[in-house]
Amino acid sequence: MIELARESLHVSVWDPVATSMNFLNEVAGRFPDAISLAAGRPYNGFHDPADLPRYLSVFQDHLAGAGLSPQRVSSLLMQYGRTNGVLGELIARLLDNDEHILVPPEAIAVTSGCQEAMVIALRGLCARPGDVVLAVEPCYVGLTGAARLLGIDVVPVPEGAGGVDAAVVAATARAVRAEGRQPKALYVVPNFSNPSGVSLPVATRHLLLDVAEAEDLLVLEDDPYGLFGLTDEPRPSLKALDRRSRVIYLGSFAKSCFPGARVGFLVADQRVVDHSGRQTLLADELSAIKSMLTVNTSPVAQAVIGGLLVESGCSLRAANQAKIGFYRQNLRTLLTALADAFPEGSGPDVRWTVPSGGFFVVLEVPVAADEKLLELSAERYGVLWTPMSFFYTDGGTNALRLSCSAVEPGRIGEGVTRLARLLADHG
Amino acid sequence: MIELARESLHVSVWDPVATSMNFLNEVAGRFPDAISLAAGRPYNGFHDPADLPRYLSVFQDHLAGAGLSPQRVSSLLMQYGRTNGVLGELIARLLDNDEHILVPPEAIAVTSGCQEAMVIALRGLCARPGDVVLAVEPCYVGLTGAARLLGIDVVPVPEGAGGVDAAVVAATARAVRAEGRQPKALYVVPNFSNPSGVSLPVATRHLLLDVAEAEDLLVLEDDPYGLFGLTDEPRPSLKALDRRSRVIYLGSFAKSCFPGARVGFLVADQRVVDHSGRQTLLADELSAIKSMLTVNTSPVAQAVIGGLLVESGCSLRAANQAKIGFYRQNLRTLLTALADAFPEGSGPDVRWTVPSGGFFVVLEVPVAADEKLLELSAERYGVLWTPMSFFYTDGGTNALRLSCSAVEPGRIGEGVTRLARLLADHG
Repeated sequence: MIELARESLHVSVWDPVATSMNFLNEVAGRFPDAISLAAGRPYNGFHDPADLPRYLSVFQDHLAGAGLSPQRVSSLLMQYGRTNGVLGELIARLLDNDEHILVPPEAIAVTSGCQEAMVIALRGLCARPGDVVLAVEPCYVGLTGAARLLGIDVVPVPEGAGGVDAAVVAATARAVRAEGRQPKALYVVPNFSNPSGVSLPVATRHLLLDVAEAEDLLVLEDDPYGLFGLTDEPRPSLKALDRRSRVIYLGSFAKSCFPGARVGFLVADQRVVDHSGRQTLLADELSAIKSMLTVNTSPVAQAVIGGLLVESGCSLRAANQAKIGFYRQNLRTLLTALADAFPEGSGPDVRWTVPSGGFFVVLEVPVAADEKLLELSAERYGVLWTPMSFFYTDGGTNALRLSCSAVEPGRIGEGVTRLARLLADHG
Repeated sequence: MIELARESLHVSVWDPVATSMNFLNEVAGRFPDAISLAAGRPYNGFHDPADLPRYLSVFQDHLAGAGLSPQRVSSLLMQYGRTNGVLGELIARLLDNDEHILVPPEAIAVTSGCQEAMVIALRGLCARPGDVVLAVEPCYVGLTGAARLLGIDVVPVPEGAGGVDAAVVAATARAVRAEGRQPKALYVVPNFSNPSGVSLPVATRHLLLDVAEAEDLLVLEDDPYGLFGLTDEPRPSLKALDRRSRVIYLGSFAKSCFPGARVGFLVADQRVVDHSGRQTLLADELSAIKSMLTVNTSPVAQAVIGGLLVESGCSLRAANQAKIGFYRQNLRTLLTALADAFPEGSGPDVRWTVPSGGFFVVLEVPVAADEKLLELSAERYGVLWTPMSFFYTDGGTNALRLSCSAVEPGRIGEGVTRLARLLADHG
């Protein structure tokens, strides 16, 4: 056995995020019959592999309809391709239809999932020692993990019940500068955040854009859950409100289409000056990073999403009505089950968030919701959840994340009942 | 226009590799009728999108045959999946059949193209400040670009006509240590290297493994061209000769299958100790890095390659006989055309390498083969090639790379004739 490996594997061997997630997966694997209120993935029932060849052929017909020869279609699907991908026009139409975001196709880079979009944006914006990213905390582990991989410090900005406070973002940016470091970007999930479920009021969205301008930050807006509100009230994305080119929009198709394509995108329509003095778009400049990570996103995977977009008329909001209804019902079922299981003033002192949509509810409990309790919960009580400590830079909290996206609707109530038993015995 | 972007985009705006490649693509775009002896991609004639749905269904049948339920097959293709992918068993059989490499499936990580495999390996091995990678020079731009992206220094090891000298590798590693830096790995393409076309004698392969052991290096072996020798003489991969777990094998399907899948892999069967003291494989530890780059490789793209592997009986050597014949013929045609165009002692003083296979020939010319000459070549003479300076850390050389993989066989002679005219006029 070579000791060298341990020596040299600093990043992977001691990565706390990966370690936590591996633990969760490992526990889930050991107790397959446990009800999972931990998994944040979309519901399997919406996925059918029989759709895949149809999506492929719809996209090829779309290309042929646009005048591409069979040779060009073949080359586009099977050769090396354009670094920023081939879905720019369809995604631009999607963003216009569903989000009222108006950007040119050239401002869109198709990525190998939204995770790669985060890596590209972080590497591009935080290119120098001392460049840091601010992140609303609790924070999605993909962002903190990507930053760690690139050696970029993440400075947390605490989130309140009403979301992040723009004044706290500004104060944090100034404090970072006072230390001699440069805050380059702010990462935020404006709708039904993972893990907190919190959404930003529209007024706060405007204030964040003002702070970004005042403090010279770019906002990394990540919105994988925006379609899945409990009501249809409009939730304008920061990018739709962005008049000063301060927002880089990070897009995911994992929930609105399916995760297995591993197709995401970023929108970077900022005008920049390249090495030769030529004006170009930030998305073009970021393509130099993309090309050294994955060359380009699999055109086969892009074609599958492309066919799905064509079939949907470039509106996933319209195409996803069944999913929207399903996730609304699951969230309502979860909230009702919590109210039934933890009536006011009886039993352990438990409080939970009531999000206006999305997949996640946070439960505050009178006990350390740590890996030890999780293992006990899985083994003795048959229910899985996620410790909120996974989502903080400094660890421990008495809170856990409940997800209702992947669980069978009929098992949500029983899952919460089992959780209540755990807390009654150990709360 | 925000100046911030230029300020903050150090990595992308000034990336010399991306700049060079962009220039080459831009020139190629402006002169579409020029004969390209620059493109190293595989020949389009071998790709047919009609194969894609069949590959998908063959792979699904393969999974069903292995006992997976329709629900498991659906989840495997369309959900989030295992970080290191689902092709480990098929790739392990492929490596056994075609390369006599015997590794467990768990030692294989499927990646989003070989480029991501390089990023993962570099990040995993060079995790600390001062950790550097040695690379045989001239070097593939994907390796130097990935290292730059991660802030890892690349220390070149010059290549001779007979390939790299193991003693020079050892001396370079010691010199790097003497400077207080740590050499962690050596990147090498043992067969028909890109760009030089040079291959390593078997004796040198053994010596490199001895040096890796003596100098405590891991060897990053990249072998995208190994199938395409002019003869069938055996060319044992370093991994096949590796008895001391010193080699990480980087695998590509871009030439042996097709580039558009963007599926590659790495083999890391080194036994390591993880944070909890548990023995595991290096591939497992590297999965923590993979999960923060792209989560997992598109299972749709994996399924396409999986179906192709199943159809081939897990031997791409057998399945690729037509490609092998085609590339052999194109390389012979290129070498003959060079001999005809530049007869001994006549015209400009031109010399070229005579590789034993692969896609590339290097031409030494009596003039600076720079971007200015390339533009002139494209515009006035209608032929494209790649300046060898792109592949050196310190720039300029009087040499250019000719590729014969993507060009129509009937145009190779004319391309070389045009090149001869350029050199007669400007040599």
